[in-house]
Amino acid sequence: MLPDHAFFMRLADAAAAETLPRFRSGLDVDNKLSGGFDPVTEGDRAAESAIRQLIADSFPEHGILGEEHGASGLDREYVWVIDPIDGTRAFISGVPVWGTLIGLYRAGRAVMGLMDQPFTGERFFADGQGAFFSGPGGPRDLKTRDCRRLEEAVLFTTSPRIMKGDALSRYDRLEQHVRLARYGIDCYAYCLLASGFADLVVESDLKPYDVGALIAIVERAGGVITTWTGERPENGGDIIAAATPKLHAAALAELGAG
Amino acid sequence: MLPDHAFFMRLADAAAAETLPRFRSGLDVDNKLSGGFDPVTEGDRAAESAIRQLIADSFPEHGILGEEHGASGLDREYVWVIDPIDGTRAFISGVPVWGTLIGLYRAGRAVMGLMDQPFTGERFFADGQGAFFSGPGGPRDLKTRDCRRLEEAVLFTTSPRIMKGDALSRYDRLEQHVRLARYGIDCYAYCLLASGFADLVVESDLKPYDVGALIAIVERAGGVITTWTGERPENGGDIIAAATPKLHAAALAELGAG
Repeated sequence: MLPDHAFFMRLADAAAAETLPRFRSGLDVDNKLSGGFDPVTEGDRAAESAIRQLIADSFPEHGILGEEHGASGLDREYVWVIDPIDGTRAFISGVPVWGTLIGLYRAGRAVMGLMDQPFTGERFFADGQGAFFSGPGGPRDLKTRDCRRLEEAVLFTTSPRIMKGDALSRYDRLEQHVRLARYGIDCYAYCLLASGFADLVVESDLKPYDVGALIAIVERAGGVITTWTGERPENGGDIIAAATPKLHAAALAELGAG
Repeated sequence: MLPDHAFFMRLADAAAAETLPRFRSGLDVDNKLSGGFDPVTEGDRAAESAIRQLIADSFPEHGILGEEHGASGLDREYVWVIDPIDGTRAFISGVPVWGTLIGLYRAGRAVMGLMDQPFTGERFFADGQGAFFSGPGGPRDLKTRDCRRLEEAVLFTTSPRIMKGDALSRYDRLEQHVRLARYGIDCYAYCLLASGFADLVVESDLKPYDVGALIAIVERAGGVITTWTGERPENGGDIIAAATPKLHAAALAELGAG
C-alpha cells in the first residue's frame, strides 16, 4: 500500500515540531563548536526519530534509509529516504533555505517526495499524480519553466568551492555559459527549479538522502534529474537537474568528462 | 523632526504592496531577457515611487537618494537612502532573501534603518533606541553574537566570484581563516549578523543605498560596520560588518592591503 498526501503532511508536521523550535535558537558560538550536541544535530536526530516512528507504525513492511539513524530493510519493495535537515550550514547560520526531505522509493526508483521549509511555511510535494506547492500565496501545481538554452538559464549550486578537482573544472565550464549563477541554497534550489524560477541545479558528491525526496518533485514538475553522466539519480553522486530535456542535454555536454 | 517607527512601517507596507505581488510572478524567461520591463524592474520603480511619495508628503524638507529615481536635496540635514529591492538576483530566482532597504542619514551619518522581507514577513529596524526584529517567532531585540575570533566566525558574502583583482585576493585571505563561509544572501546577511546568527559580512563595491539602511541595524545591535580600511560606511565601497569590535579588528588585519 502506498502512503497518501495526508501521511506525508503528518511526517512533515512531526519533523517541524522538532526542527523549527531549534532554528535560530541562539545557542552561542562556543556551544556550537563544542563538538557535542548542538541545535542542528539535536533537531536532525529528533526529527528523524519522529518520522521513523510514524512510518514504523503505519508501514512496518517498508525499509528506511536515514541520514542520522542509518538503514534498515533496504531490500524491501518500498524504501523511505530521509534527510531531516538538509542544508545544515543554512540552518546553523539562520537562513531559511534548509528543508526536511522525505522520499519514497519503489524497487529503487523514486515515486513520491516531500520538501518542507517550516519557517517560511513552504511545502513541495510530488506523488504519482503530479507536483504541488503549498505556502504563502496559496496552493498551486509545480511546473518547470520552458528554458532550453544555457544562455537563458538561472543556475544554482551549493558552492563551487566545495567541488573537488575534475568536478570543479567541469562545473566551471558549464557556469561560464549560463545567464546567472547563484550559490548557497541546497535542497531549496530543486524546489525553485520545480516552481519555474530557476533552470539548473548542479551539485557534486551527494548522498541518496540528499536527493531522494527531490527526484519526484523535479520529474513530476516536468524537469529532468540525473547524474552528470546521465544515469538515474536515486543513488546520489554528482547530480544535475534541469527544467527541460533540451537544457539538460546542453548542460550534460558541458559537464561531460574530457 | 525625526520620523518614528510607525512611519517606517508605513513605508515598508507601501513598498511591499508593489514588490510582493511581482515576486515569483512567473513571467517566462524570454520576457525577463527582453531588456524591457521585467518584474524586478517594475517592482523596484513602483516601490521607490511609493516610498518617495510618502516621504515627500510627511517630510518635504528631507533629501532622498534612491537606486531607481536618483537624488534630490543631498545637501539637506536629513537624507533618505533607499534601495527598494536589494538582491535583485535573489528576487529574479525566487529566493526570499532580497529586501527593501530604507535608511535615514543625518548630516551624513546613518541614524535609522529598516530592512523588510515581505515574503517571510521579517522586519529588521533600528532607531536611536535600539534594533528590533518582528516576524515569525514574535518580536525581539536584535543583538549580535559574542564572537571574537575568526576561527569561530560564520561569514557571508554575496559571491567571491563578483570580486575583482585585489579585492578577491584580500577576501580569500580572510575566508581561509573563518569557520564557515556562505554565499548569495545580499542584505539579509547583515540582518542575520544583527540577529546573532552570523558574525561577518564582507562585500565589495557597494553603493550608498546598498548599505545605508543596514548601518544603524548593525550598530544598534552591537556590531561594527566600516569600509575595509576602517572608514565610515555611509558612502558605500568595500564594506565589512562584524559582530564585535575584536572580530572586526581581526578581519581588517586580513583584508588590509599589502
